[in-house]
Amino acid sequence: MQVEIITIGDELLIGQVVDTNSAWIGEQLNLIGLRVVQITSISDQREHILKALEQAAGRAEIILITGGLGPTSDDITKPTLSEYFNSPLVFHPEVLEEVERMFASRGLPVTKVNRKQAEVPENATVMPNHNGTAPGMWFEKDGRIYVSMPGVPFEMKGIMTNYVLPELAKRSTSQAIYHKTVLTQGLGESMVAARIEDWEKALPGNIKLAYLPQPGMVRLRLTGTGTDPDTVKKQVDEEAEKLIPLIGELIYGYNEDKLESIIGRLLKEKNATLSTAESCTGGYVAHLITSIAGSSDYYYGSIIAYHNNIKQSHLGVKETVLQDFGAVSREVVMAMAEGARKKLGTDYAISTSGIAGPDGGTPEKPVGTVWIAVASPSGIEAKLLHLGPNRMRTIQMAAFNVLNMLRKELIKKV
Amino acid sequence: MQVEIITIGDELLIGQVVDTNSAWIGEQLNLIGLRVVQITSISDQREHILKALEQAAGRAEIILITGGLGPTSDDITKPTLSEYFNSPLVFHPEVLEEVERMFASRGLPVTKVNRKQAEVPENATVMPNHNGTAPGMWFEKDGRIYVSMPGVPFEMKGIMTNYVLPELAKRSTSQAIYHKTVLTQGLGESMVAARIEDWEKALPGNIKLAYLPQPGMVRLRLTGTGTDPDTVKKQVDEEAEKLIPLIGELIYGYNEDKLESIIGRLLKEKNATLSTAESCTGGYVAHLITSIAGSSDYYYGSIIAYHNNIKQSHLGVKETVLQDFGAVSREVVMAMAEGARKKLGTDYAISTSGIAGPDGGTPEKPVGTVWIAVASPSGIEAKLLHLGPNRMRTIQMAAFNVLNMLRKELIKKV
Repeated sequence: MQVEIITIGDELLIGQVVDTNSAWIGEQLNLIGLRVVQITSISDQREHILKALEQAAGRAEIILITGGLGPTSDDITKPTLSEYFNSPLVFHPEVLEEVERMFASRGLPVTKVNRKQAEVPENATVMPNHNGTAPGMWFEKDGRIYVSMPGVPFEMKGIMTNYVLPELAKRSTSQAIYHKTVLTQGLGESMVAARIEDWEKALPGNIKLAYLPQPGMVRLRLTGTGTDPDTVKKQVDEEAEKLIPLIGELIYGYNEDKLESIIGRLLKEKNATLSTAESCTGGYVAHLITSIAGSSDYYYGSIIAYHNNIKQSHLGVKETVLQDFGAVSREVVMAMAEGARKKLGTDYAISTSGIAGPDGGTPEKPVGTVWIAVASPSGIEAKLLHLGPNRMRTIQMAAFNVLNMLRKELIKKV
Repeated sequence: MQVEIITIGDELLIGQVVDTNSAWIGEQLNLIGLRVVQITSISDQREHILKALEQAAGRAEIILITGGLGPTSDDITKPTLSEYFNSPLVFHPEVLEEVERMFASRGLPVTKVNRKQAEVPENATVMPNHNGTAPGMWFEKDGRIYVSMPGVPFEMKGIMTNYVLPELAKRSTSQAIYHKTVLTQGLGESMVAARIEDWEKALPGNIKLAYLPQPGMVRLRLTGTGTDPDTVKKQVDEEAEKLIPLIGELIYGYNEDKLESIIGRLLKEKNATLSTAESCTGGYVAHLITSIAGSSDYYYGSIIAYHNNIKQSHLGVKETVLQDFGAVSREVVMAMAEGARKKLGTDYAISTSGIAGPDGGTPEKPVGTVWIAVASPSGIEAKLLHLGPNRMRTIQMAAFNVLNMLRKELIKKV
């Protein structure tokens, strides 16, 4: 079955918002064997929406629509759908209940304009939105499925994950498809490609490889297709296995794994605790660690020592060490890690110190120079990184690197 | 004149690449008064490209096409354009020279496959690509302009900036257009809408309002059109001004402003310093602050006190206060802010303590309960927030709220 995505909103057309929803939807559909044939972004205008729906119906059996469902008057997707399906808006008490529950949990009254969210075309099946007020709507007409969802990414993702994807997967009669994504960290795309060139050439015809580079990591996605799901899965898993002798030391996980959840799992297994001491990453390492639910079980906290005084007062880095070696040095980053470990009373600690830029670089220590360290019960190790001139990229890559360094320490055979 | 953007490439449809080109193009066109009516993303397939061109010609006078111009066999945009314009591919020696110059500068020989880049439809005007091998191509047919460019963002941007935008600006006889986005924080979309309902109804017909909600903020975009640029700008600015008596306390900035850069600017103006003490936001506030280049001028650092021990040892929160009121309380969040201010030696300090979830909620303090505080030279203030059940959203919204609370403190008239 072919899918078209229609994203509605003037903000997409004037470049105020980048359409990240479509890429996410495309990726998710791909995982269940559905193919997107077109993505159409249009403005909040009745005639344009009607025309886009009509043309999409000529290309696809499934039409996923995002955006234009806000309670305000510039959002006209719902009345336009009501017109397209010739289905009047009727009041759905269960939607109002959901809206009321949401507002109550935030201690707010439901406004008149929000009550309107409970008006839904009669022939729509309502899909609750647990993250907002506009419900998802599922329509069927002339053998085609139309789904309307809010444009706010996390609201759309909730409705897709809870309702749309499982339902579409059930109805999809496509061939067996299996993806496995191998997550690597430590080398750039072209270097990884060179290391696995022979393996890639020898891949069977029904397995495709895609490189998905991101700052600080390269993801390798294997997609197998065939008639029997078990056979395809076995084949893909075997090919992924063959990567271990080639780039095993770069692989940190698979599929949706995140470094911060992997280290969380490893720390829990060891019943060990962690703290951090950050300079150039300025809280980003702590943010990644604490983005994982349940991280308070193993994570105690962090000293973010942007100013050198705090490296001394709260991490016990000696003034002489700072003067002799400079804040961005092996000696200081090791003292920071050990200081965090002792002063915050944890088994492990990680630290970063570097020059994120754009200012502060010198010929010896140019912008992008970052030291990272891991302190463990058995000692401290440090590593030097050169991460280039982009501030946000340096912060992200330094964070991934130090989390990966900790991961390697945690899985070390003793 | 109306514009349609067609982006070509399978990688867009399977979600491997987010289409950032379209947003950039939309923004640039907008600045010269041209309006994008549709963005269409399609696969590298002849029939699909032909159909998309035909349909676009029914909607727009200018059709900008990106992608599918690589030298490999899966890229078929060029032969398809040759077919659409009924114009055979002919060899353009000046394009080959450009390709040869580029390869020579990298010390590489020109391969046979790259020579093919010099074959261009006869009736195309070639626009040199200084950043790659595929030239830009400008076509005119039936009063419409078609431009084909590579999909690699910096190659496309080079051709747009050097050739396409200046040429379109020359030909554009369009009206003046002016945008102003008002950034608000503190109330949801529907509540903001209720407050400005009368103002919105009274807007002149040539000014449109759009609500752009994001977690923790609502942006209001005013778009004015008219014949004279100065008149339109004045009109929009005046309407934006009228919002101040209505929702002034919610407005934190305009257009591309960010809270973290605004507070940075205010702190610099006051020659004042800042530190943070974070519990539930786990480093996200510090990350936002330090994402701004030059933040080390005013930001000293943070104590991330995920574990209560650290609230005591590094922020001086008394054990009895923690026991009597609990970690998520007015008393503790105020003690954290004051502790950070004193122990990190800054003029201002902000703090957060809450239950990000999904676990840890109680009937009295459900998940999403967050206390925030600002300590300043003149005292400490705290505020209670109810942010709902989504962990990442709670972290983000708590961070925006505490930064905005600091902003208000910094602009307070003494």
